[in-house]
Amino acid sequence: MLTFSLAQLNFIVGDLSGNVVRMEDAARKAAGDGARIVVFTEQALTGYPPEGLLGESVFLSRVDAALLKLCDASRATPHLYWVVGAPTRRKRVGGALENSLLVLKDGKILLQHAKRLSLDFGVSGERISSEPKPSTAACLEIDGTRVGFLIGGEVWGGAGKADPFAKLAAEKPDFVIVIDASPSFVSTRKPRHARIVEASRQIGCPMAVANQVGGHDQLVFDGASFAATPEGVVFEAPRFEESVSTLCLREGAFLHADGAAIAPLPAFGLPFMEFCRRQIVLGLRDYVRRCSFGKVVVGSSGGLDSALVLALAVEALGPKNVIAVTLPSRFSSAGSVDDSVALCRNLGIKLFEHPIHDIVMICEHGFGTTFGEPLGGLALENLQARARGMVLMEYSNQLGAMLLSTGNKSEISVGFCTLYGDTNGGLAPIGDLYKTEAIRLARYINEYAGCERIPNAIIDKPPSAELAPNQKDSDRLPPYPALDTILKAMIEGEHLCAEDRAEVMAALAEQEKAKGGMALIARVQRMVWKSEFKRRQLAPVLRLRPLLGGNGRRLPIAAEYDHMSIAIPAMYGG
Amino acid sequence: MLTFSLAQLNFIVGDLSGNVVRMEDAARKAAGDGARIVVFTEQALTGYPPEGLLGESVFLSRVDAALLKLCDASRATPHLYWVVGAPTRRKRVGGALENSLLVLKDGKILLQHAKRLSLDFGVSGERISSEPKPSTAACLEIDGTRVGFLIGGEVWGGAGKADPFAKLAAEKPDFVIVIDASPSFVSTRKPRHARIVEASRQIGCPMAVANQVGGHDQLVFDGASFAATPEGVVFEAPRFEESVSTLCLREGAFLHADGAAIAPLPAFGLPFMEFCRRQIVLGLRDYVRRCSFGKVVVGSSGGLDSALVLALAVEALGPKNVIAVTLPSRFSSAGSVDDSVALCRNLGIKLFEHPIHDIVMICEHGFGTTFGEPLGGLALENLQARARGMVLMEYSNQLGAMLLSTGNKSEISVGFCTLYGDTNGGLAPIGDLYKTEAIRLARYINEYAGCERIPNAIIDKPPSAELAPNQKDSDRLPPYPALDTILKAMIEGEHLCAEDRAEVMAALAEQEKAKGGMALIARVQRMVWKSEFKRRQLAPVLRLRPLLGGNGRRLPIAAEYDHMSIAIPAMYGG
Repeated sequence: MLTFSLAQLNFIVGDLSGNVVRMEDAARKAAGDGARIVVFTEQALTGYPPEGLLGESVFLSRVDAALLKLCDASRATPHLYWVVGAPTRRKRVGGALENSLLVLKDGKILLQHAKRLSLDFGVSGERISSEPKPSTAACLEIDGTRVGFLIGGEVWGGAGKADPFAKLAAEKPDFVIVIDASPSFVSTRKPRHARIVEASRQIGCPMAVANQVGGHDQLVFDGASFAATPEGVVFEAPRFEESVSTLCLREGAFLHADGAAIAPLPAFGLPFMEFCRRQIVLGLRDYVRRCSFGKVVVGSSGGLDSALVLALAVEALGPKNVIAVTLPSRFSSAGSVDDSVALCRNLGIKLFEHPIHDIVMICEHGFGTTFGEPLGGLALENLQARARGMVLMEYSNQLGAMLLSTGNKSEISVGFCTLYGDTNGGLAPIGDLYKTEAIRLARYINEYAGCERIPNAIIDKPPSAELAPNQKDSDRLPPYPALDTILKAMIEGEHLCAEDRAEVMAALAEQEKAKGGMALIARVQRMVWKSEFKRRQLAPVLRLRPLLGGNGRRLPIAAEYDHMSIAIPAMYGG
Repeated sequence: MLTFSLAQLNFIVGDLSGNVVRMEDAARKAAGDGARIVVFTEQALTGYPPEGLLGESVFLSRVDAALLKLCDASRATPHLYWVVGAPTRRKRVGGALENSLLVLKDGKILLQHAKRLSLDFGVSGERISSEPKPSTAACLEIDGTRVGFLIGGEVWGGAGKADPFAKLAAEKPDFVIVIDASPSFVSTRKPRHARIVEASRQIGCPMAVANQVGGHDQLVFDGASFAATPEGVVFEAPRFEESVSTLCLREGAFLHADGAAIAPLPAFGLPFMEFCRRQIVLGLRDYVRRCSFGKVVVGSSGGLDSALVLALAVEALGPKNVIAVTLPSRFSSAGSVDDSVALCRNLGIKLFEHPIHDIVMICEHGFGTTFGEPLGGLALENLQARARGMVLMEYSNQLGAMLLSTGNKSEISVGFCTLYGDTNGGLAPIGDLYKTEAIRLARYINEYAGCERIPNAIIDKPPSAELAPNQKDSDRLPPYPALDTILKAMIEGEHLCAEDRAEVMAALAEQEKAKGGMALIARVQRMVWKSEFKRRQLAPVLRLRPLLGGNGRRLPIAAEYDHMSIAIPAMYGG
């Protein structure tokens, strides 16, 4: 019998001493629960992903010191094995970094296992990687149980002869512990579960995975640490929150620490909208606080996107910490301000009204003087967005509040936004939600609350940027359902899960058959390619998917896209 | 005897049919020169780097078609071998991409060699890579000469048993051709030459390298194709321009195509300032044109950075295509406008004067009404920068001109800039030049021109953002020489070449010994870490170095840097 705790903590990247304290607290709890092993997550010491910090020697020196401190801290629970992830340096001077798993006990390092697959810390432009080195399977006998250890991606095998998974399997462990830091994306839970169950079958023993939780810049980690046998996943820790789950392994089966049976997992995970809500709320909260802001400010246009961002921000930070500003121009409908008023009343937040007429007029005057013609068209539209962006940054400066950008994925993907205007902000919380999904999420938030948090008037009105008289988004963009279908096929493509893929492909086939459908697809494609320069300067987008139209897949900017403007529909087949 | 041409062309990323035409023209010239082989560069067909385009099936289908077209084009020169780089797909469906070298002749593919080291197309967040596959050395007998082929990074060896360089060496070729696409950075030329001479010695035969030329988003390629024997580099093609260089290999030695001896290479490469000038001019020209702009607009503050950007832009695009705008506020010195006038007269460009007093006043009024206190401090400074940024975008819209951002690397690194203000622009041409280097380059441009292109009054005045009364940069920042020393040690670190490193380290040691020196180092470090959020939203920076304080090394934003504020000087030792 072996009792162990899966500790899914919200580490802070770079906060080495804080992370040590977090682990100490969890270890104390685990020991109190009667655990023999406490399992932390991949790169727990630094928080994941540390990115370019790993390129700074001053940081690495501190990591070395923190690891000693952590090791020392393990003396407080002398009978407990601490399984910890941390970067380590090869012995030789200037040696490559390794992504390591260490087992500490009573002040000693009992085992050190370096991840043998390449490290990817998301360093753009360069990549800090560890070359494969001779493999040693990491196993330790604890109370008569032979425990094997793996780090994150190693469970997927690969790397030919150096395959760490195969090496470990050959050691025939009784139980395998995996430390992980897998970002949470739409539909990654199922394959993650399936792989571990399969791995458990291949090795022929139960497995447990501890996964990080929390928001780290664009990535959110959902925790959801779990345990599986060859028969299936039998336990899952809470999602999107910290927890220390203590389980007991007896004769190849998992029980609660007190010996009680574990209730079967529900057949389905979180509904998609609930997933989005919780992912964005957690990501937003952690990002804002870790950037040392207590508050956020949002330009409230009276439209859906800003309303949704405000509602999510209130959930993340509380109504007192969310400030809305309505900035009407001469093209704003009367409804815009009224809707903002209703929204802010519902959410219980302060609304400032700050018209931009006079700024726009002054600029029009200056423009007329210079060019001898009135400011109009796109330049006038952009000007309004930029005047708003400028004023909102005054609020940000004055109130010490982070400005949030309200762009959705559909807009960002086709460049339907004004740089240095509505794109301003420290974070784009709904930048990975397609417009049709944003609408669904707004409705869901009302359902979930059981009341009209976001006024239906806002959800139901036709989307408009209100930068010209009676303007509607549909004047320039295809209807959002059609647009989103094309974008999903183009951007997500092979990353869509099977069901979504079938749905998108069916909708796309409809689209192709419709009059002008192929031309529309080509037009959308071109809009995506041609707007890459905008995406390079956007606020970081909270990610819901591994690829995104925000700042995920990187396209060349100064490239020739003109010869590619006729879409080949077979592209979507893959 | 074997005659061959090194074709260093300025391919356009994504312009498949255009790139085919470029190769046809060069092949015709090579054939006219009597060459048996024409050597193009790595990924010549797509232009390098294609980045995320390689993730789009529609693009890959077009690549397949373009390759057939290229193959067909080789019939026009039936006796000429075409050595070409292109992405290819593995046979099986969904197979990984390969970075391939193909030898075409008279409509047939005679040889296909896939790069066996991992591909890195700079796709951020994900990485399209080809896993190693069983190695075959690529050799072909041409007119009795056994010619071996390698792709770019393969010359560096590595990858253990799969080492493509070792495999080729074992084949004992008489001559090795390398197709390359190596970005041009400060001090990469020497190691590149040294490695090829060493490789030539290891294989025991002469080698020739064809390298791409041109600006591709942030990267510039300098061409400088070259030929080497075990004794040294004996020929180098022009830098920063297209060329087709035909050489003749006779008994292990290189001659000109007409049999004339090749003059020895000068002992030194381009002086550093001349390198910067040519790299920036080429990168700027290609970027602006390839983004379909004919013109650029620059806010002329009367300071050094904007003057330097204007001077470089004039060189890149001609005076008719460069527009300056001076935007005085109440804090602008009289000299600022006068200096801009003198500068624009010297450069022969149009200068608009567009004061921003009235916009700032209106905003101050609105702010006062809302908050009941005057706008001041940082908020007022930011407002001025943003009002300018907004007006400059009106000029960009109205004149169809790309706005250039004038930030230098020192400012960008410490976040001494206003987001959505002076950071606005499609490109930051001097964003990888430290302030002290920007000053040197301004002086160099005058020397080079033999006249005062940039008025000395601009070069000599103390740097100021002029956002508050009598403000100087030195009020908030350390003197630039000290700042740049610290930044170079921190950012470039191990990437500095030996001489620069010695100089930087000596200056840093001085700095540490000075009163408050350590505190200053810690302060600068903190400024760099804390301003990462700004760098994420900057315009693309033209790169002069592999890492940069602009958008090169990626640091976490929402991280805890507070516990790291005491610098450890040993960090710089490495």
